[in-house]
Amino acid sequence: MKNFIYDINTKVYFGQNQLDFLCSELKRFGKNVLLTYGKGSIKKIGLYDKVINLLKEDGFNVFELADIDPNPRITSVSKGAKICKENNINVVLAVGGGSVIDCSKFICANALDDVSDPWDYFSGKAQVTAALPLVTIPTMAATGSEMNITGVLTNEELIIKKSASSPLCRPAVSFLDPTNTYSVSKFQTASGTADIFSHILELYFNFNADFYMLRRIKDALMKTVIKYGPIALNNPRDYEARANLMWASSWAINGFLKAGDAIVWSCHPIEHELSALYDIAHGLGLAIITPKWMKYCLNEKTLPYFVELGTGVFDIDKNLEPMDIANKCIKKVEDFFYVDLGLDDTLSKVGIKEEDFPLLAKKACKGETLNTFLPLDQKAIEEILMMSK
Amino acid sequence: MKNFIYDINTKVYFGQNQLDFLCSELKRFGKNVLLTYGKGSIKKIGLYDKVINLLKEDGFNVFELADIDPNPRITSVSKGAKICKENNINVVLAVGGGSVIDCSKFICANALDDVSDPWDYFSGKAQVTAALPLVTIPTMAATGSEMNITGVLTNEELIIKKSASSPLCRPAVSFLDPTNTYSVSKFQTASGTADIFSHILELYFNFNADFYMLRRIKDALMKTVIKYGPIALNNPRDYEARANLMWASSWAINGFLKAGDAIVWSCHPIEHELSALYDIAHGLGLAIITPKWMKYCLNEKTLPYFVELGTGVFDIDKNLEPMDIANKCIKKVEDFFYVDLGLDDTLSKVGIKEEDFPLLAKKACKGETLNTFLPLDQKAIEEILMMSK
Repeated sequence: MKNFIYDINTKVYFGQNQLDFLCSELKRFGKNVLLTYGKGSIKKIGLYDKVINLLKEDGFNVFELADIDPNPRITSVSKGAKICKENNINVVLAVGGGSVIDCSKFICANALDDVSDPWDYFSGKAQVTAALPLVTIPTMAATGSEMNITGVLTNEELIIKKSASSPLCRPAVSFLDPTNTYSVSKFQTASGTADIFSHILELYFNFNADFYMLRRIKDALMKTVIKYGPIALNNPRDYEARANLMWASSWAINGFLKAGDAIVWSCHPIEHELSALYDIAHGLGLAIITPKWMKYCLNEKTLPYFVELGTGVFDIDKNLEPMDIANKCIKKVEDFFYVDLGLDDTLSKVGIKEEDFPLLAKKACKGETLNTFLPLDQKAIEEILMMSK
Repeated sequence: MKNFIYDINTKVYFGQNQLDFLCSELKRFGKNVLLTYGKGSIKKIGLYDKVINLLKEDGFNVFELADIDPNPRITSVSKGAKICKENNINVVLAVGGGSVIDCSKFICANALDDVSDPWDYFSGKAQVTAALPLVTIPTMAATGSEMNITGVLTNEELIIKKSASSPLCRPAVSFLDPTNTYSVSKFQTASGTADIFSHILELYFNFNADFYMLRRIKDALMKTVIKYGPIALNNPRDYEARANLMWASSWAINGFLKAGDAIVWSCHPIEHELSALYDIAHGLGLAIITPKWMKYCLNEKTLPYFVELGTGVFDIDKNLEPMDIANKCIKKVEDFFYVDLGLDDTLSKVGIKEEDFPLLAKKACKGETLNTFLPLDQKAIEEILMMSK
């Protein structure tokens, strides 16, 4: 068990009609607000009007950056930062899915420094040294971006998707209203649920993750996602389901479960290459890859992790042979993704071509060996992609 | 499911040798520090010297309030606040168990106002309007005071023990080093473990507590406490055990599990009267009362809670009759307290006399009916005390 610093200081208003507190929270930071959002779904659900009316009534000066892409482009960061600099923005208000929030985190950073190409945060050439405060209103339960320090951006020129993190980018305040996710499509609900599940699973399959209490809380969150993902799919306006998914998505990846563990993600970097090249939904890519990665990882040394998951989360009979439990456990994960959530199970079904596998694998591991649960080099990743074809 | 505001902003340094960060954290608030502690156990374990040396080396002006009692007296609050006012204290550093931290919270408050009798915070006559920042170094895993907004104080004159809460009293920074609990006696370890378990159980047996994810996290924390309490008892220097108990104690009662639920404590107010009158350890009192309270509460309406606990936490066979599961579940809780933790199981064993039951019951419910899981009036509480005699 490693030392850690716990410092998750996002204030969260959880529930319905909490936007009554929006203006008082924003006012703490100033009157000039940059409102960021995506392709307009927040207009369809009436959230845009609601927010704009509140801000206007209260005398805020509102600037806007719209059209942030689902796999957000680094160019949006530059655009947003430019607006902030030109208009003396005090606070950024991100309304939308994980992509909008991720992108806004680096707008907040770039607004306060002279980094001319914000991709530098992602390539390692620049560090975040300061950031405007960020307030978020998420409209999806998936990435957990509303409470964490990370953003994933895409560089269109380089065709590469990368994450970067800074505690300075953690949202100051987030308004989590489960009803804002009612209109999320079946597919996006399934995909977001797969993303949440994958976050927890990747923290779980980790030889460093030996903090018993946190392992049991991972069980708790996985059980929650398994129970409520399908319910939200079948009844999009089920408040319990949407609320459980929403709060679980925040806690899956806000840093609490990680504690002091060194985490090297396995499925996430592979998936990032899929969605960078093919622009597929992140959660869908994870759902395709994850069970195959689990099969790839199953051996005598990793077996206890599968048994722990199978018996602790999926309620598989403890008295069975361990290898039998492990195989049933993988089958349970497959059923969850492909039956309960109805997601595609192969790369070919989503149009990803076998001929691209070597390139995807090479990019995912950057030509090196990832020091993951089981080490992953290009060959290993190609094998997982072949298992997924 | 109710709305809630999540705003738990205590920064926690968890692990060994994290005191390297102590001075830099204190410095954020100023140079004048009031060090508060109890009966000197922090001197025995070398923690006092370590802290004092760090502060002196870094040029802090250190004032001290020692001798805070295990069931802390309101008079200590007055003393501490006086020192703060006279010496322009910038930050209070509480080193010790829950009693020291609880007491320090209201020293922080009283240092900044003109409330002449700090019992007024507890009787409802005064509100906390401001508070000095509080930094804590807990030496026990029990009350969770290091991360929450509550303190329990005793008024010696009135022979009454009461809790009061204010978000302004939440510690700014806490240093949780499991090795600081190595020297906690077997009895205090058992008692603290019972306290943690009881906090979770009281949040669990609540008709309002319908947030599935949080119910599963309650399972996770109870499993943690059940597993590691006995290990810490038998091997006081087991780091895993001490660490799990320590982090579980913080999360049991920092507000996260409560979310928007209206909580009216059942066993806690009864126990507070026991320890106010007899000065017994809080956790011991809870251990005696809780299983009897569970028996008192078991009926057709409450049955599902017992079944959920029995199957989800104690692994009782789901196929048994519900009432059978419930009875086995209560037996499991008894075994945990009285066998695994070795605590006394009756009031007579700790010297509490039957003749005091009516007075204790009357004080616990203040002559009214507590709107608890099952409503508790004086007669009901007397019945529970009789079951515990």
